[in-house]
Amino acid sequence: MTERFAVRMVVDLPADMDSDVKADLLAREKAFSQEWQRSGEWVSIWRCVGEYANLSIFEVRDNAQLHEILSGLPLFPYMSMQVTPLTTHPSDIKA
Amino acid sequence: MTERFAVRMVVDLPADMDSDVKADLLAREKAFSQEWQRSGEWVSIWRCVGEYANLSIFEVRDNAQLHEILSGLPLFPYMSMQVTPLTTHPSDIKA
Amino acid sequence: MTERFAVRMVVDLPADMDSDVKADLLAREKAFSQEWQRSGEWVSIWRCVGEYANLSIFEVRDNAQLHEILSGLPLFPYMSMQVTPLTTHPSDIKA
Amino acid sequence: MTERFAVRMVVDLPADMDSDVKADLLAREKAFSQEWQRSGEWVSIWRCVGEYANLSIFEVRDNAQLHEILSGLPLFPYMSMQVTPLTTHPSDIKA
Amino acid sequence: MTERFAVRMVVDLPADMDSDVKADLLAREKAFSQEWQRSGEWVSIWRCVGEYANLSIFEVRDNAQLHEILSGLPLFPYMSMQVTPLTTHPSDIKA
Amino acid sequence: MTERFAVRMVVDLPADMDSDVKADLLAREKAFSQEWQRSGEWVSIWRCVGEYANLSIFEVRDNAQLHEILSGLPLFPYMSMQVTPLTTHPSDIKA
Amino acid sequence: MTERFAVRMVVDLPADMDSDVKADLLAREKAFSQEWQRSGEWVSIWRCVGEYANLSIFEVRDNAQLHEILSGLPLFPYMSMQVTPLTTHPSDIKA
Amino acid sequence: MTERFAVRMVVDLPADMDSDVKADLLAREKAFSQEWQRSGEWVSIWRCVGEYANLSIFEVRDNAQLHEILSGLPLFPYMSMQVTPLTTHPSDIKA
Amino acid sequence: MTERFAVRMVVDLPADMDSDVKADLLAREKAFSQEWQRSGEWVSIWRCVGEYANLSIFEVRDNAQLHEILSGLPLFPYMSMQVTPLTTHPSDIKA
Amino acid sequence: MTERFAVRMVVDLPADMDSDVKADLLAREKAFSQEWQRSGEWVSIWRCVGEYANLSIFEVRDNAQLHEILSGLPLFPYMSMQVTPLTTHPSDIKA
Repeated sequence: MTERFAVRMVVDLPADMDSDVKADLLAREKAFSQEWQRSGEWVSIWRCVGEYANLSIFEVRDNAQLHEILSGLPLFPYMSMQVTPLTTHPSDIKA
Repeated sequence: MTERFAVRMVVDLPADMDSDVKADLLAREKAFSQEWQRSGEWVSIWRCVGEYANLSIFEVRDNAQLHEILSGLPLFPYMSMQVTPLTTHPSDIKA
Repeated sequence: MTERFAVRMVVDLPADMDSDVKADLLAREKAFSQEWQRSGEWVSIWRCVGEYANLSIFEVRDNAQLHEILSGLPLFPYMSMQVTPLTTHPSDIKA
Repeated sequence: MTERFAVRMVVDLPADMDSDVKADLLAREKAFSQEWQRSGEWVSIWRCVGEYANLSIFEVRDNAQLHEILSGLPLFPYMSMQVTPLTTHPSDIKA
Repeated sequence: MTERFAVRMVVDLPADMDSDVKADLLAREKAFSQEWQRSGEWVSIWRCVGEYANLSIFEVRDNAQLHEILSGLPLFPYMSMQVTPLTTHPSDIKA
Repeated sequence: MTERFAVRMVVDLPADMDSDVKADLLAREKAFSQEWQRSGEWVSIWRCVGEYANLSIFEVRDNAQLHEILSGLPLFPYMSMQVTPLTTHPSDIKA
Repeated sequence: MTERFAVRMVVDLPADMDSDVKADLLAREKAFSQEWQRSGEWVSIWRCVGEYANLSIFEVRDNAQLHEILSGLPLFPYMSMQVTPLTTHPSDIKA
Repeated sequence: MTERFAVRMVVDLPADMDSDVKADLLAREKAFSQEWQRSGEWVSIWRCVGEYANLSIFEVRDNAQLHEILSGLPLFPYMSMQVTPLTTHPSDIKA
Repeated sequence: MTERFAVRMVVDLPADMDSDVKADLLAREKAFSQEWQRSGEWVSIWRCVGEYANLSIFEVRDNAQLHEILSGLPLFPYMSMQVTPLTTHPSDIKA
Repeated sequence: MTERFAVRMVVDLPADMDSDVKADLLAREKAFSQEWQRSGEWVSIWRCVGEYANLSIFEVRDNAQLHEILSGLPLFPYMSMQVTPLTTHPSDIKA
């Protein structure tokens, strides 16, 4: 059984971050995200147009696993997140 | 070619709405939504837990078609909507 | 396995609601809440001082069950809710 | 006699904080929190999913003691807090 | 022992309230407020200039008594309240 | 003749402020505040629980004197203030 | 001696207000405003473009007189107000 | 000489407005808008997707004329407006 | 012909600004403001009590001139501004 | 086929940015903007009076191209953006 959540993540990196540090951070962020995409918990990730932000859909075992993923992100200290628990909509034709 | 958007819709029905009017309205809303789900533009619809609200993903021909769908909803006069244009995220393994 | 959530509920009844309708509504609200308290899902409910509002803690099977409880409340059409998914805190001595 | 309060604490550490300073700060924060949990005033502490934040329940002697605890937290200079005084809810089956 | 709180109350009466109903309501509000002023719990009440609002200081036995007073106000259904728990300030020359 | 105002002051000191500079600043702040308390213009000062903030009541000669006091505070550059002009409330038993 | 204040007033009339009632209300509002303009307390009144709102400057005897004027406005029950106490600016060439 | 402004208008019609009244209102709104488009002051009008709202560009003689147009709209009592004065941007290739 | 605007300016100087740099900046700000006051465009400037902020009234040739003045202020990079276009109010006895 | 969007961009440069770095950044920003204006996607750009901000209209191939332009701006790391998808308004005489 999995629980679905929408998470909107906004990134705010310091303007004076060293470019090597930044490149390393972003590479690890991408790898971390893709690992969880491949294992199936991070179902979708979309860029919000004009923002350093994404909207993602997660299907996780429980609240604890969602927090483990989100707080494990290399960019977590530079992000603000908005978490919305989701459930089946009565009009959903796939439900 | 299709464009992807996230739309968060919050419903606020008048407390004193006639129950028959309401039942009819909700039935038409459901039918309208499912028609666009079947034709493929309304890709996902999820209930936000604890709210009379949904988060939906649309893949539409253009801005005009998205507005045609949203403003055509029988509940449109009772909804507030937040529209976010989306694009591919560089970390997306499906991209 | 249960998932923990904090829910803040604010009630806004119409000023001109018929007093019998209101009394019946509140009686059904209380019964509904207490039923879920007795079955263990609604763990705590506290009044927020000076507000027609409560802060509640739920331990539910999943997101779907939380929405079933919240949307089943007789006062649901008159409430706005703020749902926060919780997990264990690393400083919690009971964890 | 004790008074109950809900407190939501959000932590915002500077991105460039020295890692030793940070480790020491967090160790002292944890010890301080657990001391007040053991003595009974800090009744519950939960992590808010996806945030560097917690929701806590306190049962304290009075307003002064609550401020003593909160302002004594090693992380206090890096936190913003939202304090809600609570009282018994008429629907509470334990009241 | 008493606990001190600041409460800001904003009144929003329906524009079409019957004038006799309103006069009666306001008379009962005034009597209720003055009763608690005389018994000492409602220490100060000031009008906020240009608003149908007041700022009040309460010294009460506990959270429960503060809620009893505030929720007992005849105007309570028409008010929104902001409650701030107070304690002694280290610079206070009277402390 | 004096005019009454409520002022809510929130302090935000830089995390890296030198501890001697800070100690000197706070000592001067306290002395400055107490001087105006003794001369009668700064009638009350209370700590807001869980915040580096206070709620104060002033009775001053005029707007100019209130600004002179507030802008003269050694912590003024680190504070945000919310000023509310007050007048007598018709329900006040002392009026 | 007079005290200066800026007041921003926003009007929100019910859409279904009877047109005679409205005409009478607006006529009395205008007369009331002009009376205080002529006596000198209501120094300036400007329309905010695109809004049913005004920005006004008052020079009054004290806080009490300002509240007397504002709360005496026939439109007061339909207005929200934002009051800013002003004082001389050090760069003012007229000061 | 003309002055340029951006205006965002959001419409909020009462849910129970009579359909004939509404049809008449909307017809007059359209005619009024088109008249000012033809005379050149209302340069652009676009629908905001998913909202009963528009973003418009005006080039008017002065502030007074802009207010004359906006407050003359048949829907004005049902609209909230946000007015932004514009001027030439130094990067504009047409400037 | 002149256009009237209200501008609220809030200043936020870095806490660690060099005192000579600051003194020079403020001297140039004052001179700049007074130059435009003398030439008639900057009609009024008032200090907002308890804030490092002012409310000003401008009568300018057009939007471009207002932006020229505001963006030319030595403190402009440290200010946030709120610009409100004004026009004659129908109740104004001077109109 | 092109899609129309309004974008409001607000710039927030660090107060201590090196003047050569800044001059170079602004020169590249201007060149980048003008390149997209000449190729037709960046249809309009206006300065918002009193703000380091602009309102722009884009006509782009799709969401992806809009994000490519906006995120490619040399000032992008220092900007916050608000993106509004637009479509034809039924009252538009040019539609």
